[in-house]
Amino acid sequence: MVRWEPRAKERLQAAALELYASRGYEQTTAAEIAASVGLTERTFFRHFSDKREVLFHGQQNVLQAFVSGVEDAPDDASALDAVGYALRAAAALFPDELRPHSRMRQAVIEQNPALQERESHKLAALATAVAGALRARGIAEPAATLAAESGSTVFALAFAQWLQDGEQRSLAQTSDDVLGELRSLSATRTTPTG
Amino acid sequence: MVRWEPRAKERLQAAALELYASRGYEQTTAAEIAASVGLTERTFFRHFSDKREVLFHGQQNVLQAFVSGVEDAPDDASALDAVGYALRAAAALFPDELRPHSRMRQAVIEQNPALQERESHKLAALATAVAGALRARGIAEPAATLAAESGSTVFALAFAQWLQDGEQRSLAQTSDDVLGELRSLSATRTTPTG
Repeated sequence: MVRWEPRAKERLQAAALELYASRGYEQTTAAEIAASVGLTERTFFRHFSDKREVLFHGQQNVLQAFVSGVEDAPDDASALDAVGYALRAAAALFPDELRPHSRMRQAVIEQNPALQERESHKLAALATAVAGALRARGIAEPAATLAAESGSTVFALAFAQWLQDGEQRSLAQTSDDVLGELRSLSATRTTPTG
Repeated sequence: MVRWEPRAKERLQAAALELYASRGYEQTTAAEIAASVGLTERTFFRHFSDKREVLFHGQQNVLQAFVSGVEDAPDDASALDAVGYALRAAAALFPDELRPHSRMRQAVIEQNPALQERESHKLAALATAVAGALRARGIAEPAATLAAESGSTVFALAFAQWLQDGEQRSLAQTSDDVLGELRSLSATRTTPTG
C-alpha cells in the first residue's frame, strides 16, 4: 500500500541538497535524507534511483528544452541563431528564485570529482542532442557540431556567471551576453598564414 | 647496467599499436609488447609508465604546440586568430606520413571507453591551457575560454576529418577549413528575441 506523500519528491530533493552541502555527499545516505523529512527510504527510492540522481534528474528537461528550442527556431535562423533560441528555452527553466538552490548544487558537485565527471558527461550529451536537432534542420556537418558544442560551452559559462555572488542578471541575459561574446570573437576576419 | 637499445621507444610504440589493434588493448601486456620486438619488460617501463601511456605520451607536445602557437601569434591577432595559429602549430606535428599510425591509434581508442574518456580529458586540458595562454595575451573572460573551447572542438573535428578514409587534405588544411566554418557560423547577425 502506497501512502500519498504530498510533494515528497520536492521535499526529498531539498533535504538531500541540505545534507550534501552541510555534511558531504559521500557521508549522506538515502535513508538519512528520507528520515530528515519524516519519510522512509522506500519512498526515497520510489522517486530517485540513487542519491546521485537527486542532483541530475532535472537535466533531461534541460536537454529537451535545448532540442525544442532548436526545433522551434524560425526557418531562416542560422545555426548559431537556432542555438540562441535553445539557450533561451533552457534559461526559462531557471528563474532567479532557483539561483540559491543551483548555487548549493554547484558547491556540492565541485567537491566531488565523480559528480563533476557526470556533469561534463551530461554537457557532452547535450551537445550531441543539439547537433542532431541542427542536422534535422538541414545544417550540415561540421557546422552542426561546431554550433552545438559552442552552445554547450556558452551555456556552461553563462550558468557559471549566473551563479556568481552578487550577480543580478537572469540566466537568459548572461546567456545572451556570452553568446554575443562568441559572435564578436569571430568577427575579426584576419586569417593566419604560415 | 643499462644496455643501449637503438630506437627502443619508437619500436615499442609501433609494436604496441600493432598488438592493441590486432588482439585488443586489454588483452595485451607490456611484457608481450617488449618481447615482440626482442626487448625486455624492464626496457618497456624505462620508456613508458604503463601501457596506456604509449597511446598518450605525445599529447603533451600537442598541448605545448597549441600554447606556443597562441604565444607567438602577432600582437594584433584576435582571440580566434590566435587559435588559428595554435591549430597550425599543432598540425605541424602530424605530417601526412603519420596518418596511418593515427588512424590505427584512433581505432584502438574507439574500442575502449576508458581510453575515450582519457582522450576527452586531454582535450579538456588542452582547452584549459589555451585559455590561460589567451588570458596572458590580455584576452578577457569569457572570450578566452570561448575561443579556447572552440579551438579544441575545431581540432577534434579537423583531426577526425583528416583520419577519414580517402581524405587527401593535410591536417593544417582540414583545420583551416573547420575554423572557416566556425567563422561563418557566427557571421549571421540575426539575434533571437522572445
